Amino acid sequence: MAEKWLIGVDLGGTTIKIAFFNFYGEVLHKWEIPTDVSNEGKNITTDIAKAIDGKLDELGRTKSNILGIGIGAPGPVNLNTGGIYEAVNLGWKNEYPLQDLLEVETSLPVAVDNDANCAALGEMWKGAGNGAKDIVCVTLGTGVGGGVITNGEIVHGKSGAAGEIGHITSIAEDGAPCNCGKTGCLETIASATGIVRLALEELKIGGQKGQLSTIYQQAGQVTAKDVFDTAREGDEIALKVIETVAFHLGLGLANIANLLNPEKIVIGGGVSKAGSVLLDPVKERFLQFSFPRVAQSTDIALATLGNDAGVIGAAWIVKNKVVKSET
Amino acid sequence: MAEKWLIGVDLGGTTIKIAFFNFYGEVLHKWEIPTDVSNEGKNITTDIAKAIDGKLDELGRTKSNILGIGIGAPGPVNLNTGGIYEAVNLGWKNEYPLQDLLEVETSLPVAVDNDANCAALGEMWKGAGNGAKDIVCVTLGTGVGGGVITNGEIVHGKSGAAGEIGHITSIAEDGAPCNCGKTGCLETIASATGIVRLALEELKIGGQKGQLSTIYQQAGQVTAKDVFDTAREGDEIALKVIETVAFHLGLGLANIANLLNPEKIVIGGGVSKAGSVLLDPVKERFLQFSFPRVAQSTDIALATLGNDAGVIGAAWIVKNKVVKSET
Repeated sequence: MAEKWLIGVDLGGTTIKIAFFNFYGEVLHKWEIPTDVSNEGKNITTDIAKAIDGKLDELGRTKSNILGIGIGAPGPVNLNTGGIYEAVNLGWKNEYPLQDLLEVETSLPVAVDNDANCAALGEMWKGAGNGAKDIVCVTLGTGVGGGVITNGEIVHGKSGAAGEIGHITSIAEDGAPCNCGKTGCLETIASATGIVRLALEELKIGGQKGQLSTIYQQAGQVTAKDVFDTAREGDEIALKVIETVAFHLGLGLANIANLLNPEKIVIGGGVSKAGSVLLDPVKERFLQFSFPRVAQSTDIALATLGNDAGVIGAAWIVKNKVVKSET
Repeated sequence: MAEKWLIGVDLGGTTIKIAFFNFYGEVLHKWEIPTDVSNEGKNITTDIAKAIDGKLDELGRTKSNILGIGIGAPGPVNLNTGGIYEAVNLGWKNEYPLQDLLEVETSLPVAVDNDANCAALGEMWKGAGNGAKDIVCVTLGTGVGGGVITNGEIVHGKSGAAGEIGHITSIAEDGAPCNCGKTGCLETIASATGIVRLALEELKIGGQKGQLSTIYQQAGQVTAKDVFDTAREGDEIALKVIETVAFHLGLGLANIANLLNPEKIVIGGGVSKAGSVLLDPVKERFLQFSFPRVAQSTDIALATLGNDAGVIGAAWIVKNKVVKSET
């Protein structure tokens, strides 16, 4: 069995990343195809099957070489059926039977999990987690997502909604509205969108001084990257925005750690590329708000796999599923 | 093996509860002995061994009838060794070798966990958890404690400090000082001690009207029970205190649920005996601050085992350990 290949699929709203791995998680082949969201996303599983068949032909390999397919999907998963309760970006609803359809299309065993959970498992297996069995992954991108691993297993929760770190309520009163219907969610502060929102608010108050203000006046907008770039140069408005982000992110991560005392909290996503200008003040707040024993033992680390975390974690779930079923 | 008895021990700072169970968690015999904290707690394991031997003699049974001993201890546990890193109430420090000592004293297999974790496992096995494999237990007593179970297993975390729900930072700025060294911890608000503190603050501001104020003037002090009793009668100051407690507890539990989406959050401890006067406003805040999918699927329930949760959970850990080692 250890000579067979694993297939990892990271299913996104725009592209589908596919990779072949050996049993030890080393990438053999990696490519992408566009996501066809027409027809309520009903072509997606066929497209994946065709892409895999095509690549196997190209390599002169057959399906007998493949242990199975793991796939990360952008929505909450029914672990019993491998169905996706809902995936707004793909047009899937009413528990779309992803695992069943992909197994029928490919004649291979399929394991399904949420995309954020796959990314977390990827970091556990091959990334910043470095084998730690208690890790929490936070992805700071357009939104804020998360995956929680305890005792080496993903926490899914009662209805697959565990890991909604972006929807931790950080500002309990008079917070900004969130897409989820609540207000004051961490996502309204620590996502790229939230950072831009805070910057625009501060620019309104702060007047027309500093680099960030100049960018805003010239371009008519600012990005989260502008905020980090100008903060590194000492821009006061940008530093104030980062202070707010670090306060809430540090508080949220500390409270996660007070609950779970993970070995590592791994931060990934586009916003995490800001590096130390964001990470240093986040760590400071994290230490301030953590129970002393937790502050001493839980580390904050940057994700190391970038966009590959999802396919690597997807390969891990099918490996784990097939190995467990054979013991 | 299924005919053997299990022994559960709940080790507290004042008393040690001991119980014999059958394999299905039904209590056969239950009693207590005082905790001898003299001599840095070094007599405790001998006292437990003597108590068990005495009871077996009394019942005309031998140790061959016993599968093993599970014990819950009031401190963080090193799961690899069964040692207690520190138990301030008992005088134990420098990783006191509880498992090793009790095995030597009794010649029986011993399993060790933290007392709050044992209580959580007890509620999972025989109490409000009702078999749910994802539950979080919160104990509102003199302090606030907690135990987290995911995928049917206790989360211990990197240094045994998982479940520190009382030390979730709820008031990030200008909160009351906590014994842990931080400020604004949930324990400073939602424990019996915290409720009394809030009541005294409100009594200072609120002047001399209402039942709670009368009690305070007559007795020179108030208890958490006074606050709940007078709130039920509509006392304004008491209701204001409960509103504050419910706000922070509801927020904290919602954020735990946003992270873990447990099937149940089980609330126990003396303060939970307040019942609906506390629970109803807590549930209201919980729904307000929970991610919609979580609000629909995570329930809040009262603990059902009372003081027995600890011994029942302790029996479960030794059953689980011995069964696993034999498969």
